[in-house]
Amino acid sequence: MNKSGILVVISGFSGAGKGTLVRKLMEKYDNYSLSISMTTRKPRDGEENGVHYFFVDHRKFEQTIAEDGLLEYASYLGNYYGTPKEYVEKQIAEGKDVILEIEVQGALQIKKKFPNTLLLFVTPPSGEELYNRLTSRNTETNEQIMGRISRASEEVEWIPKYDYLVINDKIEECVESLHNIILSAHNAPIRQQELIERLKNELDSLSKGE
Amino acid sequence: MNKSGILVVISGFSGAGKGTLVRKLMEKYDNYSLSISMTTRKPRDGEENGVHYFFVDHRKFEQTIAEDGLLEYASYLGNYYGTPKEYVEKQIAEGKDVILEIEVQGALQIKKKFPNTLLLFVTPPSGEELYNRLTSRNTETNEQIMGRISRASEEVEWIPKYDYLVINDKIEECVESLHNIILSAHNAPIRQQELIERLKNELDSLSKGE
Repeated sequence: MNKSGILVVISGFSGAGKGTLVRKLMEKYDNYSLSISMTTRKPRDGEENGVHYFFVDHRKFEQTIAEDGLLEYASYLGNYYGTPKEYVEKQIAEGKDVILEIEVQGALQIKKKFPNTLLLFVTPPSGEELYNRLTSRNTETNEQIMGRISRASEEVEWIPKYDYLVINDKIEECVESLHNIILSAHNAPIRQQELIERLKNELDSLSKGE
Repeated sequence: MNKSGILVVISGFSGAGKGTLVRKLMEKYDNYSLSISMTTRKPRDGEENGVHYFFVDHRKFEQTIAEDGLLEYASYLGNYYGTPKEYVEKQIAEGKDVILEIEVQGALQIKKKFPNTLLLFVTPPSGEELYNRLTSRNTETNEQIMGRISRASEEVEWIPKYDYLVINDKIEECVESLHNIILSAHNAPIRQQELIERLKNELDSLSKGE
């Protein structure tokens, strides 16, 4: 059996419920570790360093880039966001499946560098349901909501680049689906190379009568 | 949701336990249909037409080839073996996942023509275990067993072409793994094209304020 963990990237439309899904996966199963992003943006009320983000200044962030310490990074509204490499690699080596909640561009950047990464995309059952979830939050102007819808209509084009698309209708069912997909992904030959190599050697020896 | 079924090909070394796994999948879950191969080989004792194979003569088989009525076919020791297309297509259209137990060449032939096909490869946990299972049957000469081992050592090279590799150690666990993998496969974007198209249209309309 392959004992390494998998890097699991979860993306999805704003309003798809990614945060809740990730929290429930972490609570329900013990094979997951959560990757925490690094950012230069200031903490909002209630956000804690090392829990929601690693909050650093521009100098520290650029130093981490220079040291090749990030799996991916992007700049958004004048702030950097990135994924520290060390934590992810350590957890994966220990057999943990590391969950990383990031947006489409970062996800594809990681998949390109690490084809072993599992890309999951989460969507509400329909566009209308997405709109309803965004408006029922009552925290944003109509303009902000339309901005999110417009972004979703761009992101939808990238779904075929993902390994799996999962509908978040009933949250518990969605958590189960995500968990099953991640378990199944361990069986892809790309993640079973040690086993394949071992079988190859064993069958080779046997067929030579060794 | 995508309501079509999936064509699921199960291959594996001779002695991996494919037959038992397929039978248990069929018994335990009701989303599966079993594809029955057509052959020109004579029935063995206890084999029934329409249960183990569709037994036909060379003329009928070649007529079916000419009518493009087979998903794949191959000739082996002077006999034809093939997969009738009509049954598979009908069951898939009705939402059934159709299970087809065939060898590596046929599997890759099908995947090439129908990229949507899910290819699963089953292996015992080790070469030694494969050898033990083959010898404990007590039905074959050592030469025949070595022939199977030699064939396995060729087949192992093709595993990376499969979508998933599953170890058959404890049979019930293996059945569960196969079932989870097949369920998960429904979530691959290639099998969710209708959903993606619908989301695209809905988000497009919403972002235009329609």
